[in-house]
Parts: sequence; C-alpha cells; structure tokens
Amino acid sequence: MNRLDVTEKIISTKVSKGIKWEDVAKKVGLSKEWTTAACLGQMTLDASQAKIVGKIFGLNVEEQKWLQVVPYKGSLPTPVPTDPLIYRWYEIVSVYGTTIKELIHEEFGDGIMSAIDFSMDIVRQSDPKGDRVNVVLSGKFLPYKQY
Amino acid sequence: MNRLDVTEKIISTKVSKGIKWEDVAKKVGLSKEWTTAACLGQMTLDASQAKIVGKIFGLNVEEQKWLQVVPYKGSLPTPVPTDPLIYRWYEIVSVYGTTIKELIHEEFGDGIMSAIDFSMDIVRQSDPKGDRVNVVLSGKFLPYKQY
Amino acid sequence: MNRLDVTEKIISTKVSKGIKWEDVAKKVGLSKEWTTAACLGQMTLDASQAKIVGKIFGLNVEEQKWLQVVPYKGSLPTPVPTDPLIYRWYEIVSVYGTTIKELIHEEFGDGIMSAIDFSMDIVRQSDPKGDRVNVVLSGKFLPYKQY
Amino acid sequence: MNRLDVTEKIISTKVSKGIKWEDVAKKVGLSKEWTTAACLGQMTLDASQAKIVGKIFGLNVEEQKWLQVVPYKGSLPTPVPTDPLIYRWYEIVSVYGTTIKELIHEEFGDGIMSAIDFSMDIVRQSDPKGDRVNVVLSGKFLPYKQY
Amino acid sequence: MNRLDVTEKIISTKVSKGIKWEDVAKKVGLSKEWTTAACLGQMTLDASQAKIVGKIFGLNVEEQKWLQVVPYKGSLPTPVPTDPLIYRWYEIVSVYGTTIKELIHEEFGDGIMSAIDFSMDIVRQSDPKGDRVNVVLSGKFLPYKQY
Amino acid sequence: MNRLDVTEKIISTKVSKGIKWEDVAKKVGLSKEWTTAACLGQMTLDASQAKIVGKIFGLNVEEQKWLQVVPYKGSLPTPVPTDPLIYRWYEIVSVYGTTIKELIHEEFGDGIMSAIDFSMDIVRQSDPKGDRVNVVLSGKFLPYKQY
Amino acid sequence: MNRLDVTEKIISTKVSKGIKWEDVAKKVGLSKEWTTAACLGQMTLDASQAKIVGKIFGLNVEEQKWLQVVPYKGSLPTPVPTDPLIYRWYEIVSVYGTTIKELIHEEFGDGIMSAIDFSMDIVRQSDPKGDRVNVVLSGKFLPYKQY
Amino acid sequence: MNRLDVTEKIISTKVSKGIKWEDVAKKVGLSKEWTTAACLGQMTLDASQAKIVGKIFGLNVEEQKWLQVVPYKGSLPTPVPTDPLIYRWYEIVSVYGTTIKELIHEEFGDGIMSAIDFSMDIVRQSDPKGDRVNVVLSGKFLPYKQY
Amino acid sequence: MNRLDVTEKIISTKVSKGIKWEDVAKKVGLSKEWTTAACLGQMTLDASQAKIVGKIFGLNVEEQKWLQVVPYKGSLPTPVPTDPLIYRWYEIVSVYGTTIKELIHEEFGDGIMSAIDFSMDIVRQSDPKGDRVNVVLSGKFLPYKQY
Amino acid sequence: MNRLDVTEKIISTKVSKGIKWEDVAKKVGLSKEWTTAACLGQMTLDASQAKIVGKIFGLNVEEQKWLQVVPYKGSLPTPVPTDPLIYRWYEIVSVYGTTIKELIHEEFGDGIMSAIDFSMDIVRQSDPKGDRVNVVLSGKFLPYKQY
Repeated sequence: MNRLDVTEKIISTKVSKGIKWEDVAKKVGLSKEWTTAACLGQMTLDASQAKIVGKIFGLNVEEQKWLQVVPYKGSLPTPVPTDPLIYRWYEIVSVYGTTIKELIHEEFGDGIMSAIDFSMDIVRQSDPKGDRVNVVLSGKFLPYKQY
Repeated sequence: MNRLDVTEKIISTKVSKGIKWEDVAKKVGLSKEWTTAACLGQMTLDASQAKIVGKIFGLNVEEQKWLQVVPYKGSLPTPVPTDPLIYRWYEIVSVYGTTIKELIHEEFGDGIMSAIDFSMDIVRQSDPKGDRVNVVLSGKFLPYKQY
Repeated sequence: MNRLDVTEKIISTKVSKGIKWEDVAKKVGLSKEWTTAACLGQMTLDASQAKIVGKIFGLNVEEQKWLQVVPYKGSLPTPVPTDPLIYRWYEIVSVYGTTIKELIHEEFGDGIMSAIDFSMDIVRQSDPKGDRVNVVLSGKFLPYKQY
Repeated sequence: MNRLDVTEKIISTKVSKGIKWEDVAKKVGLSKEWTTAACLGQMTLDASQAKIVGKIFGLNVEEQKWLQVVPYKGSLPTPVPTDPLIYRWYEIVSVYGTTIKELIHEEFGDGIMSAIDFSMDIVRQSDPKGDRVNVVLSGKFLPYKQY
Repeated sequence: MNRLDVTEKIISTKVSKGIKWEDVAKKVGLSKEWTTAACLGQMTLDASQAKIVGKIFGLNVEEQKWLQVVPYKGSLPTPVPTDPLIYRWYEIVSVYGTTIKELIHEEFGDGIMSAIDFSMDIVRQSDPKGDRVNVVLSGKFLPYKQY
Repeated sequence: MNRLDVTEKIISTKVSKGIKWEDVAKKVGLSKEWTTAACLGQMTLDASQAKIVGKIFGLNVEEQKWLQVVPYKGSLPTPVPTDPLIYRWYEIVSVYGTTIKELIHEEFGDGIMSAIDFSMDIVRQSDPKGDRVNVVLSGKFLPYKQY
Repeated sequence: MNRLDVTEKIISTKVSKGIKWEDVAKKVGLSKEWTTAACLGQMTLDASQAKIVGKIFGLNVEEQKWLQVVPYKGSLPTPVPTDPLIYRWYEIVSVYGTTIKELIHEEFGDGIMSAIDFSMDIVRQSDPKGDRVNVVLSGKFLPYKQY
Repeated sequence: MNRLDVTEKIISTKVSKGIKWEDVAKKVGLSKEWTTAACLGQMTLDASQAKIVGKIFGLNVEEQKWLQVVPYKGSLPTPVPTDPLIYRWYEIVSVYGTTIKELIHEEFGDGIMSAIDFSMDIVRQSDPKGDRVNVVLSGKFLPYKQY
Repeated sequence: MNRLDVTEKIISTKVSKGIKWEDVAKKVGLSKEWTTAACLGQMTLDASQAKIVGKIFGLNVEEQKWLQVVPYKGSLPTPVPTDPLIYRWYEIVSVYGTTIKELIHEEFGDGIMSAIDFSMDIVRQSDPKGDRVNVVLSGKFLPYKQY
Repeated sequence: MNRLDVTEKIISTKVSKGIKWEDVAKKVGLSKEWTTAACLGQMTLDASQAKIVGKIFGLNVEEQKWLQVVPYKGSLPTPVPTDPLIYRWYEIVSVYGTTIKELIHEEFGDGIMSAIDFSMDIVRQSDPKGDRVNVVLSGKFLPYKQY
C-alpha cells in the first residue's frame, strides 16, 4: 500500500457517496483549500485529522497512518498540464511570469514569495456579466540573504 | 525590427534611467500589472498609450507601432521555469493544481477560470513576522456548453 | 474505480456490441461531437444523460456517477500525437498557427477564440475527386481586457 | 539570405506601413488564409504572385525568388505553443483529438483528413452574446489502401 | 479488452507456434508488409480478413472485432527509437531529410509524398559482398492547393 | 567559418542563380541523392568533387576545403520534424517501424539494414490517379556477431 | 508472455540462486559480454544456446522460444541514464564524443565504427593505486559509399 | 571572448592549414586523445602546453589564457546525438548499458568506473574483412564507501 | 520479484509499524544517511547488514538477497523533481552550479568532487529565528589526469 | 545591454587579468560563494558593492547599474547538466534525493530546507588519501502551515 492508493480510495469514495470537500473541511476545522490538498495527497495530517478524514471516507487504521506520512508532492501527470482549467493557471505563469517577477522585486527587492508559508482562498464573486472566480494567494516574502 | 527588440530597449532604458513600473502605470492610467505586462511584450497598447510609453522610454514612431501589434505571448525561456520566484508560482500550480480544479468545479461545475477576462493585483501586506506578498486573481468563470 | 475505467468499459462495449456514436448522440439528444467527447472522458454529463449512456453501455449506478464528475481532460498519450489522423490536426496548428493568429487579430484585435464556449461539427461532403471532411469550428471571441 | 529573413522583412514592413493581410490577399487574388500563410513562410508562390507580394512589401528580385522556394514548414517555436490564441487550437487537438478520430472513422473508415489538399476559412459571426470566430476546415479524406 | 491485448496475443501465439508473417499474408491474400502492420495493430481489417487472422492466431469473436476497429496508430515506445534496426531508419530521416525534401520539391513542386496512399515492399537482394535489404516505398504525391 | 556557413552559401546561391540539384549531380558524376546530401552538409567530398561544386556555387579555396571535412551530421532542427514532407517519413518509421523490424528479421535474422553502406533513389512514377514518388532504399544487411 | 517477462525471470532466478554471468557464459561457450547481453534481452540465441540458458535458469519450452526471437533492443529506462555507473559511459560520449569523431575520421575518413559487427571485453587490471576497469571495444569501420 | 570562440578558431585554422591532431599531440607530448579533447574545449592545458598549441593554431596571448581555464564540458548539441558515428557509441551505452553494469559489479562490487581518472586509446587494426576501430578504455574503479 | 518490490515493502512496513530510519541505522551500525539510501534501493548491503534490515522490516531470505544486489540507481520519477523539498536542492544546483564549479576549480584545478567516495551528514541546528537544516557534503577531489 | 553581457564581460576580464574570486570577495567583504554567484549573474548587489566589483572588472556606470537589478536566475544551459563537476551534484540529488527528503522530514516534519535563507561554504580538507572537497549547506527549515 502507498499514499497513492489512499488518495484513489478517497476520490473513489467521494464520487460514490457524493461527499463535498467543503463539508470535509468543516469537520476537519481547516480551510477547504488545505483540506482538499491533504486529501489529494499533497499535505500531511496529524493523527486526529487523519481519524476524522478516515471516518468520512471509510479508511482503516493503516490507511489513516499513510495520511500522516509526508508525501512526494506534485499532483500533475505532465510538466505542461493538459487539463484546460489547470492550463489556464500555467498560462498565467507563462504570460505574466516576468511581470510578477518585476513587480514583486520593485516592491520587495531580491527574494521570493513563499509557496510554503502560503495560503490560498478561492471564492465565487457574483457578477451580472458572468460570475467570477476570485482567488487570493498570500505568501511570506523571503529575501535573499548575503553571507 | 521586431517586438522583442522593443521590449529589450524598454528594459535597457528602465535600468539606465531608473524608471519604476508603478510610475509608468500611473502615466498610462492603468494598473501596474497590466502596464508592466504590456511593456514586457505580452499585451497590446492603443496609439495613445503607445505614445505615452514611447515618450517615457524614448521610442521612435516605428517602435511605438510595434507596441500596438498583438505579440506572440509567452515570457519564459523554458517550460519549467528556472528562476526561483517564478518557479514558486509553477510549484503552486504543480502541488495545488488538482485542489484548485476540484474546488472550482465543486462551486461552479465544469468549465474554466478565464486567463483572458482576467485581472491580477499584487500588494504588500505588512506583517510583524515578515511582510507578505498578497495577490488577488480574478477571472470570469466560463462554463462548457453542450451543443 | 476511476473515470478511465469507465471510458475503457464504454469503448470495449462499443466494439463488442457494434454501437455507433451517432446513435448514442440521438438518444442523448445532443450533437455527436459533444456526446462522443463525453463518452471518451472529456466532458461531464448530468444525471439523466448519464442514465441514458449507462443504459446503452451497461454501466452500473457507480459508473454512471463517474460520468457526472468533471474529468481531468486531455485525451492523447503524447504532446506530439503519433496517430496520423490526429497528427494532421496538430500539423494544421503547427503550419497555420501564426496565420490563424494574424487573421483573428486583424479581424478582432487582441484576444482568443474560446475552446470552452465552443462547438464543432464534422460532416462528410461528397466530391467526385474524393469525398471531403468538412469541419466547422465555432468559438466565442474573448478580448483581453485592460484593468 | 534565407526565407526567414524575407518573412521577417514582410512582417516588419507590414507593421511600419500598416498593411492588412486581407488587402494583400485581394491583390494576389487568393484567400486571405492561404496568402497570409505564404507571406509567413509556409507556402510557395509562383513568379507572378511573388512579384505582387514583392511590390506590396518592397522586396527586391532575390527576395522575390525566395518566396518561390518551398520552405521548411512549421511556424511555432515550441511543441506546445505558449501563445494563448494558438494554444486554444492545440487544446482542441488535445481534448477533442480522440473524438475527432472516432467520428471521422465512423463516417469514412480508416484513413486521414488531408492537411495538404486542404482549405480553411476564418470569418466573424456577429452574436449579441459576443461575436464568434467561425472557422471552416475542409480536407480531402484519404483512405489507407491495402496492397 | 483493447486492441493492444489482441496485438500481444497475436505476437505471443506467433512465438509459441512459430508462425511466419509471410504465411499469414498469403492466407489473407495481401502483401506481407500490410498484413504484418495490421497484425501489429497499425491497420484495420475487414470482417473476412479478421476471420482468417483470427483462425491463424486462435482469436475469439470479440478479439476479431477489435481487428476491425481503427487503431490509435504509432508502434514505438519513444520519439527517438532505441532499437538499432529501427534507429537506422530514423537516422535516414535525420541525415537525408533535407535531401529528400529538396529532391521531391525539385521534381514535383510544393506538396508531400503520402504516407496513407502508400505501399512498401521489403526484399532480400543477394550480393557477394553481403546481402542487401532493398525497400521500395511508393507514395502518391499530394500537392498543396491554392484557395 | 564553419561547414554550416558553406551550406548556407550554397543554398543561397542556388536560389539566386536558379541552379538544379540534378545538374549539379551530373557535373559531379554521382547520383543526385548523394550529391544533394553532400551540398547540404551531410557527406564529404574529395578535392576534385569539391572543386566542381565550388565552381558551380562560387566557393573560394577555404570554403572548398570545408566540403572535404567530415561534418557533424543531422539535418533537422527538432527530433520530431515539423515540415509536413519530412514528417511523412518520420510517420512511416513510427507506424511501420515494428513491421519493418519483424519482416527484416524474418528474412535475415538478428542484425540491421545499414544506413552507411546505403543508397537511395527517388523517382517520379506517372500515374493517371496522381503521380507517385517512388523511392528505393538499399542497405547492406549487417548481422550481429557472437563473440 | 513476452521477452521482458523472460528477462525478469532470468534476473530473479539469478538473484535467488546466486548464479554468475561468467559461469553462464562458460556453459554457453561464448564471451561473458555477449552472453550477459543475450540474457538481459538484447541479443538472440539459437535453439541449442536457448536450451542451455533455459536449463540454468529453469525456463520452460515457451520461454526458451522467446530467447530465440529478435528483441526490441534498448536496455535503459531514460535517454540520459540516472545510474552512476552507466552515466559515466554516457559522460564519456558527451565529453569525448567530438574527440572520438575527429580521431576516427582522421585515421579512416568518413564513416562509422560499427556497433553491430562489434565486440567488447571487460577485464580487471590490478593496480596498486586502485584496480582499474579495462574495456576493449572493437568495431569494424564502415565507410560511407558514394553512389 | 570565451572558450567557444577559441575552439572555433582552432577548428577553422585546422581546416584551412590542414593540420592533423596526431601532429599536434606529438608536439604537445601527450596522447592524441587527450590533446584533441583539450583543443576541442573539453580539457585544461597548462601554460607551456597552451603556448605550443597557440603557436600551431596562431592564438594570441589572451586566447592562450582561455586554454588554461577549466571549461564547461559537454561537446554535443543534443542529449541523443544525431551524428551517426557518435550515435553508435550512444547505442552501445543504450544496448549494452545493463550488461556493462552487471559485469563490472560482478567483478568489482558496487561502485563505478571513473570517467575522470580515465584514459582512452583509439587504434586501427588491419583486417582482411575490413579494418577495425579498436578502442581501449581504462578507468579506475571507485567503490561506494559505507559511512 | 525485483528490488523495487523490496523497497516498497520496506516503506510500507515502516509506515504501518512506525519505524524510524535513525533506529534502523543504529542497529545496522552505520550513518543514517547511508542506511536510508540502502533501504530506499540506492545502495548495496552485505549479508549481515541485509539480515539486520530484513529482521526489522520482516523480509524473507529471497528479499534479503535482493538487498545485496547492486541496484539500478536513481530515486526520482522526473529529471526535474516536482517535490518542493527535493526541488530546492535541484534549484541550488541550477542557481549555484556555475559558482560551485568556479570555486572548486579555483581551489583544486580541473577535476570533480566525487559522488562515490562521498559522505553526507544532515543535522538540525537550533536557531531562535527558526531552526536550520545543516548538511555537510564531503567528497574526494578527483583531478583529470593527462595521458 | 543586458545582465548576460555584463556577466560575460566579468568572466572575460577575469581570464585576461587573472583575477581570483577569493580576492574579489575580500574586497566586497562577503563570502566567496555569494560574491561569485553575484558576479555570475545570480545575485543582486547594492550600489557600493557594484562600485567595488565595477572597479575590479572595469565596468562603466551603466554596467554597474545592471549588477543592482534582480536577474532572471538559473545558470545552466540544460535541465540535466553535461559538465562532470556539476553533474555529480545533480547525481547526488538523483540518487540521494529521497534519502534527504526522508531524513529531513523525520527530524523536522513536513516542510522544506530554504534555498533562499541559505548559505554555502566550500573548503579544502587535506587528506593523505587525496584531498577532499567539504561543503556545508545551511538553510532555514520552513514548515508547511495549516490554514
């Protein structure tokens, strides 16, 4: 057994039982973004979180243990994603990448926006011209240090 | 002459004169994100915007015309970016890609978040534990249609 | 079980029973293009459509539920397709790509032709010199917005 | 001098003089799709067509000769295009590739849709919900022969 | 079950029974080249051909049906083949590619040599310095059409 | 100066003077296939052949010397060719690769068809249904030796 | 069953029984290099050799037949090998590739060193500073022929 | 100026003056293999060696200094070489890679054959069936150490 | 059975039993770095070490034999790693690669730092600003030899 | 002018004047590792540091300004490095990558070792068996946060 088996069991149970990520997140007591990432095999749960998730998806004790192991991260099958929704995000990196770099450096100097000390919030914004997906990304700025 | 020559001239002048993207944006009258993308060869200006940008960076009439031509977009030299700041964004797509997909589909159904009818706002958020880069992405949701 | 299993079962049943996509489409009440894409795991059906498709291909309730889940899209095993029929389409993008870009921009300005708000119609056109495949692609034009 | 030099001179002159592909096509007396492809270095002109194009773009006799040489075709810098407009076409091949294959084979049997004995027509279709790009592709069906 | 399963069963039976492609071809009544390609999952047989092949390799009715389905073509596991015999053909394309292109265009003008309306004949030519493999490739020339 | 410079000068002169490969081959006294490959930088000429080629294309003594140096072979810019004519040859290797391998091994046993002790002849075959490109490839069979 | 299954069975048996390649080679009566390559699925044995190898590794009659079938060659999982021992050989090709080419051409003219009419001998050479791996590669020189 | 410029000047001078690597090596007083690698930008000369090479190829003092700088090694333009002579070596690594690995480990245990403490000797071996290229590779065995 | 099966069994048992690498290393009597690499299928154990590891992870005699076979090394699924922790190490090689090269050559001359005669020590360093990972890499310098 | 031009000028001047990185670092007053990275275009200097470096390498005011601009980082020409010294580091990531990941997670939990808040120290360690390169890498541990 490995983490991928557990992830596939979670997804399969989600489909057959019609579970929603938002409800899982409420029971776990964390954001829906982090909780979904954890269920999809990208984050690590502690024992009590794993028990809650295990109960929702019918995981046995060994499967719950896998949820507590740091996974090999990376959720996409190809370097350039083929799925249109995920590709649009890759396109943003490709088209706006140098823009993002210029503006963060103009404001903060040399360094990066952390993808570890990081949070994400995805919300629906009603709009008469068609609803919008609004996403807030928040990452700590980490400056390069001289030594 | 091609668009790349104009982009390089803009960047070179920016360094030698010490121009800031934020000041360019104010003179053009648009967001700093869109304005920077346009100066870096990813967006198309109209004649009056091209004139303003041309004045700032010392571009002649032909160079200003190139700013009004739709460019071949894509600002990065490799499919997987090597620059640490831009890589962190690619890492977000790689690690959180399936999470983003699941949550948008849970909320909106099948479709995508547009990268065309789209805006981005990058701001500094002060934080005693270290300032944060906050980014708001807003894209229209476009559902797949049956036919 | 995952979506791929369902797709393979549909294809396998199609071969053994000699089902035609056009007949499936008529029963579902939509175009043959959209219906085939859905059966091949690229589109999402609603419950009543999934029931019709399930009846045709002998899918059980759980398999029908998978037809209602948004799939990870992308139907080809390699970035450059090896199948000659599909390659000819890739070749059109490769050879005519900049032509398509120039003409759409000349007519519409900066933006894209949507691949989401999109339809396709493939028909046979009799021709004494050899029948022709005629395909009509129709996609909404989405202009880049300034912000 | 090579064909690429001639293509770049044509594009550069088009920008500085503000020439439209549609007007070039009218003077050449062929479709705007084929004419644009030829000017972008993907098709071969005969001597009289090369003279007309040469006059429009100020090409000398040697440059006109290059327009009559069969070029090494392929207009994109990367296997997966980074430009959003061209990517949407690649996405159509990626998402609908197996659908297109199934439907053409269901109608015609084993073989391909030619990308050589082929024409394309790109037109604007007005639509109150947003204008549409309509494209008609027409290619001869070429069946595999037994031998 | 899919086409690949049928191909593997054919190859496995060929080894255990010691069947020769040439004998299969004689029974099918077509060239050994086309027949072998069909048995290896690259071509489509009609019902009576599938029955003959099925009898030779012990295929049941469902497996025979798969032989009549147009396959997703492409028989090699990597873009650059690792097998020395097949690599030599790839090398010919790599080293002589532009030569082939120049000479066909010099003789025929712009267009291609069809790989669909195409036949191949592989024969042994005795030679005291070492026997030679002689291959005749014959493909219809398809000129680009203006439109 | 390097071999590529000489190749480009030959091609450029060929276009401006309207020279034909067949005529070059006759003056050199070898097949048009080998001669073209040599002029395109894939084969090595001896001093007297280089002098003849040099006279035809106006090459000076140093440029003629480069024609006598064994070149780094490989004439295509990408592993998978984008040019439709050359791609059709690559497609033949892809689709028929295992067929070629099976039939040569059935006839000759384990080994390869040489791409070095090799010749190629490209001829036009008139055909009322459309002329055909006929190509004869002849390579020595080289068996693997046990040791 | 396929050749890979036979290769894996041979390797698995070798580990559990502690067989040495050198001993296998002695029983087969050929060099240890060729024999090992054959057992690893890269060379073809005749019936009597297959019987000997089959007896050593406990292969049944059908498995012995697979040893007599010409395999699809290529023993490494990636174009650039990740295993340090094999990478060092790839590094030799990468660093010394042009050196090897220059020196063979200086001595022999245009052509190649055959990898088919080829043998290899790997021996240990004692050395007080640390033992050395000595490898002799011997390949027939095959000159390019003019035609 | 960089090392590549010096390498190109050496090769260009070699062609125009008809210099042989073997003669360069004799003057430098080292093997022809190492000397050629150094002249091709893969090895580092000391000041006196650089002076000798500089005299042979007409290099000035600054160019001689570049010969003394450790270069970024790697002499081939692509991961899989396209040149037939160099490809044959890559093919040996691909086909015999696991064989080499097995035999070296059987003799020496876990470790590698050094490509640094390494020498190579390329010689012609006359043979009535066609001369052979004999190559001796000698590398120190470096065992993995436990710690 | 192969080495990968043994590695997966070790990892699976580690999760279900909650074993720590540090404890395994203590029992084996070697560093935790080398021991972990061996258990993950990158290093070779001797019989007594394999017995200890086998006892800890419940491996039978055949599985213990696999631990004594030199593995095909390389522990990552893609050339550019997707896991953020491992990517940071790749980033260090990408950003600092030329720096490392310059400084080692300035100190030692032409050669490499061995990755075979090599050790690694990973320790936690407490720090009020956030604990640090300190890693000491130690590799023998191997100079290129002239010959 | 761009950053790459400045980097090349620095390297070129370093060779012709025989400057050492260690001496540059002393004058700048920082570690030789950070200083070398900055001179090679991977780090950003402030105005006074740029002045010192400019004086050493003879850079004018505009070139000094480029040293103060945040560069697009990434110092290697290919994803898998070809240079043997740098490859050994990539090999360490490839072979020990999962080991490093396991041990850091065992000690610290889920998170990464920063490559930004990071330092490196390369020193020579004398050893009678051959001197060693010792490298200390120190990076802050950054834990994934729940939100």
